[in-house]
Amino acid sequence: MKAEIITIGDELLIGQVINTNQAYIAEKLNAVGVLVERMTTIGDNRRDILESFTAAWSRCDVVCVTGGLGPTHDDITKKMVCEFFQCDLVQNESVMMNVKALMAQRNIAWNKSTEEQTLVPRKCKVLQNRVGTAPGMLFVESPGGTKKYFVVMPGVPFEMKSIVDEELIPYLRRENFGTIVRHRTLKTTGIPESALADEIGSIEEIIGTDGSITLAFLPNPMGTKLRITVREKDADVADAKLQSAEDKIKAKAQKYIYSIDEMDLEDVVGAMLTEQKLTIAVAESCTGGMIANRITNVSGSSAYFNRAFVTYSDNSKTELLSVPKELIRARGAVSREVAEAMAVGARANAGVDIALSTTGIAGPTGGTAEKPVGLVWIGYADANGAMALKFNFGEHRLRFKERASQAALELLRRKLLKLHLRK
Amino acid sequence: MKAEIITIGDELLIGQVINTNQAYIAEKLNAVGVLVERMTTIGDNRRDILESFTAAWSRCDVVCVTGGLGPTHDDITKKMVCEFFQCDLVQNESVMMNVKALMAQRNIAWNKSTEEQTLVPRKCKVLQNRVGTAPGMLFVESPGGTKKYFVVMPGVPFEMKSIVDEELIPYLRRENFGTIVRHRTLKTTGIPESALADEIGSIEEIIGTDGSITLAFLPNPMGTKLRITVREKDADVADAKLQSAEDKIKAKAQKYIYSIDEMDLEDVVGAMLTEQKLTIAVAESCTGGMIANRITNVSGSSAYFNRAFVTYSDNSKTELLSVPKELIRARGAVSREVAEAMAVGARANAGVDIALSTTGIAGPTGGTAEKPVGLVWIGYADANGAMALKFNFGEHRLRFKERASQAALELLRRKLLKLHLRK
Repeated sequence: MKAEIITIGDELLIGQVINTNQAYIAEKLNAVGVLVERMTTIGDNRRDILESFTAAWSRCDVVCVTGGLGPTHDDITKKMVCEFFQCDLVQNESVMMNVKALMAQRNIAWNKSTEEQTLVPRKCKVLQNRVGTAPGMLFVESPGGTKKYFVVMPGVPFEMKSIVDEELIPYLRRENFGTIVRHRTLKTTGIPESALADEIGSIEEIIGTDGSITLAFLPNPMGTKLRITVREKDADVADAKLQSAEDKIKAKAQKYIYSIDEMDLEDVVGAMLTEQKLTIAVAESCTGGMIANRITNVSGSSAYFNRAFVTYSDNSKTELLSVPKELIRARGAVSREVAEAMAVGARANAGVDIALSTTGIAGPTGGTAEKPVGLVWIGYADANGAMALKFNFGEHRLRFKERASQAALELLRRKLLKLHLRK
Repeated sequence: MKAEIITIGDELLIGQVINTNQAYIAEKLNAVGVLVERMTTIGDNRRDILESFTAAWSRCDVVCVTGGLGPTHDDITKKMVCEFFQCDLVQNESVMMNVKALMAQRNIAWNKSTEEQTLVPRKCKVLQNRVGTAPGMLFVESPGGTKKYFVVMPGVPFEMKSIVDEELIPYLRRENFGTIVRHRTLKTTGIPESALADEIGSIEEIIGTDGSITLAFLPNPMGTKLRITVREKDADVADAKLQSAEDKIKAKAQKYIYSIDEMDLEDVVGAMLTEQKLTIAVAESCTGGMIANRITNVSGSSAYFNRAFVTYSDNSKTELLSVPKELIRARGAVSREVAEAMAVGARANAGVDIALSTTGIAGPTGGTAEKPVGLVWIGYADANGAMALKFNFGEHRLRFKERASQAALELLRRKLLKLHLRK
């Protein structure tokens, strides 16, 4: 099955918005055996939209369109779809109910533009949008005897994702296109991409040479993801090959792998804390609340996360974490001793089992020769005492915070698993 | 001048890599009067490459191609360019010098694939790649009497960017295409897209009917952006039209606009706090540190941000914010009274001018009929006393946190500007 993705929106053509929808849809289609051969981006104008629809519909089996479904004047996709499939708009009961529920929940009054969102082309099957007012639409037709699929979704990424995950992919999976593409992602952190490649060694030993398996290294500020992809006819063969590649990588680099596929590091440590019935508090200076924010992104975190102290000022470190004023004066706020004292103070004052702490220089200014921008001490305290590790995460403020929060959670993971703390 | 961007690479089609090159190139072309009308992404295969080249070259004045210039077997773009322009490859002296210097600097030995990188199509002008071995190539031809530009660049983002910034854009600017494109983005929050459209009313009154101005509504969880685009020959006329459209929108919806163009809401309130020499603390329950995290994303925030209390447990609200146990028992942790008490306690205990607080049910579980998932109270306290506003931000945990943090910062902005707090 061949597919084309058409994204519509002037904001894409002027470069104001980076197109993340294409990659998301492509990856999901891959998993159900649909291979994307072309992606096209055009503006909100009639001629280009109709021309792209016509070309894609003649070339491919699956056409996915996003964008231009909002309630405002520049959104013309729905009108164009009606013109393309030669049908009129009708009010859809299930969309009406969905939109009414969303409006009620958000306390928004009904208005004319909302009313218009409940109209859909007569010929389409509705793909319900659980998180927004613009419904997804699916046309299944057989021009020239071949069954083809034309999908239209809103361009707002989280609405598109909801429709893809909850409606489109389950539907296409039931259609059963015969080729199986499986991905598995091993998420690593605490080791640079090139060092990880050295640890893993020969790629051929892991993926073989018949081309059915590929391995990609995908670095980002949180670490490097290793993605294994298998293309097979048979599901059992695909799964066996995935597992074999995973096992071979684990034999070389198990320690750095914190999660397989979906879970983020905050999910992983959250599950461990729940399992081990431990509670935690966080004392953050340079990360400014990012660690607490990540921990509380996990549903159910209130069971183990008690509180965070975001102690940006020196006096707050003393008042909330009982770090002695003299210690800050003697060693500086960014020091091993203060990081340890913050963790000890957070643990004692919150009455929890474990505390993490961060103190560093997020920049881009405020560094010195001895303590440069990027320097951070990450502290840890439990019933056995306290310790701290030193890192440098560079001069870019936001990436510094991301890396420091990741290193703090990774320190926690390794402590909970009793692993070595450095490489 | 109309342009099309063609990005080539299998990694884009399987969704492994998000295409950031398109947006980068589009924005840069815009600034020199070249409007991108279409973006196409295809794989490394002969048929699709030639077909796309042909279609784009016939439709547009400027064609920008990236990708497929690497030294490995799957990179065929250079061969395809030769075929398309019917010329052979020749060794280029300036490319040879550039590549040799790069190899020496990186201590890499000369090899056959590097040698091939120094070959370029006979007809092209070289756009030097200062940071990599694959040169950019520019073809200037006049098929049918119209001068057209065909540009080929590597797909590695930092190499592409170097060629665009150092070579391509300066060249196109010298060509002087005479059209000026200006954008202005008004960022709004605290009002849904459809209600904002109703407030603004007739779009024609704002942008006129001659097509030189366009207005786009771009919604996301943080609010709705209004983007004005003007296309003109004369820079002064363009600026005047932009300003006029901005003024007309402001006359209708000024209150909801927190920033023009670049700044986020945390930057805006940060600048106000600095200006007014005020200090702030935050008491977060359901937002779990996100507000503090956003405030501390701003360089220089340590001047006004003192600390945050992330009080996830009931006992931490009492211990850190002096919220009476009885109040939590009587009204519930998610209540107007507790939100106000948290803000008052945070302000007093941190010794700051202003405090914000949040308490709510982030979900997806934990709601009741009376207090559903999504409910949040946002509190505010200053020298004049305390107050709180009630919202419902829906059942998706992360978006709930984003919306609640945005509403809290917007409450602060409106307080600092003495604006009405509700619509």
